[in-house]
This record gives sequence, C-alpha cells and structure tokens, in this order.
Amino acid sequence: MREQFKAQMGQLNETLIAEAKAAAKAMSRAATALADANLSKAEKVIDADKHIDLLERAIDEMGVSLLARQTPVATDLRVVVSGLRLSATLERMGDLARHVAYVARGRYPEPVVSGEVRDLLLQMAEHAKIAGEKMAKLIETEDLALAHEIEAEDDLLDELHLRTFDYVLDENNSYTRQEIIDIVLLGRYLERYGDHAVAVARRMQYVVQGLHQTTDPFAKVDLTEVAN
Amino acid sequence: MREQFKAQMGQLNETLIAEAKAAAKAMSRAATALADANLSKAEKVIDADKHIDLLERAIDEMGVSLLARQTPVATDLRVVVSGLRLSATLERMGDLARHVAYVARGRYPEPVVSGEVRDLLLQMAEHAKIAGEKMAKLIETEDLALAHEIEAEDDLLDELHLRTFDYVLDENNSYTRQEIIDIVLLGRYLERYGDHAVAVARRMQYVVQGLHQTTDPFAKVDLTEVAN
Repeated sequence: MREQFKAQMGQLNETLIAEAKAAAKAMSRAATALADANLSKAEKVIDADKHIDLLERAIDEMGVSLLARQTPVATDLRVVVSGLRLSATLERMGDLARHVAYVARGRYPEPVVSGEVRDLLLQMAEHAKIAGEKMAKLIETEDLALAHEIEAEDDLLDELHLRTFDYVLDENNSYTRQEIIDIVLLGRYLERYGDHAVAVARRMQYVVQGLHQTTDPFAKVDLTEVAN
Repeated sequence: MREQFKAQMGQLNETLIAEAKAAAKAMSRAATALADANLSKAEKVIDADKHIDLLERAIDEMGVSLLARQTPVATDLRVVVSGLRLSATLERMGDLARHVAYVARGRYPEPVVSGEVRDLLLQMAEHAKIAGEKMAKLIETEDLALAHEIEAEDDLLDELHLRTFDYVLDENNSYTRQEIIDIVLLGRYLERYGDHAVAVARRMQYVVQGLHQTTDPFAKVDLTEVAN
C-alpha cells in the first residue's frame, strides 16, 4: 500500500510537471508564431492544447483517487490539493497561449499589428514565455527563488501592457480596427498568462513551505457581511 | 466526530453558496452600473470583491482541514474537492464583474460606449447577470435543469460577443479609441463570465451525479506524447 502510494504520488507529480512544461512550451511557440508570422508554430500550439486538457483531467482524477483511497496527510495532502488547483491554472495558461496563436494564424501571412506597438507586444510575448519557463522549472525543482523572478516578469508584463494602451489611445497613431482589436486582446492574453504564472508561484510557496494556519477555518467566517 | 463532520460539511456548503451569491450579485450590480452609469453600484462591486476573495480563502482552508482531519469519502469527497475548484472559479467571476465595474466607473458620468453596439453590450451584461443568478441557484438547490439553462445563456453570450466585433470592424461606425478598447474588453469580460458559469454548472453535475470513472487514472497517461 505504502509502495503504491509513493508511486502514485510520483506519477501525479510527473504529470503536473509535464502539464507545466506543455503550458510553457505553448507560450514559447506562440511567441515565435507572433514574432515570425510562423503558421506552423501557431498550429502546433493549437493542436497541442488538447494534450494539456488531457493532462489536467488526468491530474484531477489521480488527485481524487489518491484522496479517496490513500488519505494523504501533511505535505502529501498539500501536494494533492495544490495539484488540483495547479492543473486548472496550467490548463488556462495553455488556453491563453492558444488564443495568442489564433491571432497569429488569423493574420497570416501578414504579421500581427504594425508600428512601434508591435515591439511592445513582442516584448510582452517574450516575457510571458520567460515567466512560463520559470514556472515550469519552479514546479520541477521547487526552487522558490524562481517565484520572485516570476513576480518580476509579471510586473514587467503589467507595465508593458499599460503602455500598449497609450499607443492605442493616441489618435495620431493610425491603426486598422483589426489591429486595435488585436492589440487589446493580445495585451490581455499575455498579461493574464503572467498573472496565472504568479498564481502558480504562490501556490508552490504553499506546497513547499506550508500554510502558517493558526486559526480554525470553521470559526471565523461571518457570512452576514457578504450578504449586502 | 461524526456530528462535527456534518456540521463542517454544512458550513463549507453554506460558504460556497454565499460566495456564489456574491459573485452573482457582483455581476447584477455591474450590469446596472453599466446600463445606468451608476457610480455607486460600480463602487459597491469594487468594494465587495474583497469579501469574495475572503470566502474563497475560507473555503480553501475548510476543504484542506476536512481532508486532513475527517477523510471524507464518496459524495462528501466530491463536494470537498469540487468546493476547492468552485471557490477559485467564483472568485474569478467576482474579478470579472469588478473589471466591468471599473470600466463603468472610469467613464462616469458619461455612459460607456455609444451607438448600437452599446445595446449589444448591455444585453451581454444582462445575460451574464442571468447566468450568474442561475449558477448561484444551481449551487444552492442542486437542480441540474439549471445547468442546461446556463449553457444556453452562455451560447447567447458568445453570439452577442461575436456581433460586437462586427460593429468594431466596420470602419463606417465611428468610435473613439477609448470606446473601441471598452467594447473589446467588456465583451471579453462578459463572455468569460459566462464561460466560468458553465464551468461551475459542469462541476455541479459531477458533484450531484458523480463521475462514471471506469478506468484507473494511474494507468492511462502517456507523457511522451505531450513532450513534443
């Protein structure tokens, strides 16, 4: 039983690492698709997304099975519970990379967006890619120093994102309507990808360090306050 | 022990219902803020969001505590695991309502967006509100007929969302840059809110009916396929 438990925990962890790597690779390819108007990379992102969905479901089922049959405690329990949460976030990151790829594919063979704002978006894609890679490495190595680096990448993404609006709001810059839509949506997708990487980083801090929970969670929620 | 377990499961469920109602009310108020350029409603949505975040964390902690100390099985296990997932989705719905409220507040005292596309966005907000209300009712009553109604609302949201792009892409329609940004982002927020309501509905089907899991989740994942 104990042997099997250890093997299953290992498998859960491996699957999570695989999902994280897939979500990181999706953004890496989407960034290339965007930068080089590379149709085959865009299509790879779109095709590969179903694998990420599959991994999410697998992790879910493994987690529920472990909870039902093995009653993990302490660190193992944190790993399983966090796996359920992380798998959903990683799946979402894959979706966002897919949305970026859709835009690249939709404009092909033209590049997406022109002018100076294009550089901003490509920088955003590059930093989203780095955040994703650091995130996958964090899940694999549990090196929490990476968590801070991910937060820094996300701060940069937020800053670049705000600057895209300055370009769009300046009526002197001429864009087609399609370009404006692409700038706004790409900015949103890439910024959200960074947010999710940060959410993963914070959850990994919880996995590795545990929660310093000092109070009884059943003693402290006042539901009257939220009713209004 | 058994008594306490039942009481704690009840409390987890009540907190989840409270979070669902808060996420629904947030969109209801955001829709009014948008339709009536109502600043106080917008600010209520923004202020109330921290309560939703609090409920999410409470549900998380209750869930982990229950798993650690009470080892729930069967339906109870499904409820706890789904609670962890649902709480995160509901929190996200609250965020999206808050984003809608930010747009309303940002344009106040002017209404958000002008012309025919404004009607489309108000319709989207109305359907997002209905989807949220049905979702809260589904969590409270476990009446799965509501799940189908939520999917129908989401289909409508997707259709309305696509139509907003037709307006923006038509260069004959004159909009300020700010209006175009607002149309694209509001459309996205409202469409995503609907997606999340559907995700909640599907999870509730799992809570109520269980998964028809016939295979061993540890036997079927091939990680080599996702590595490329």
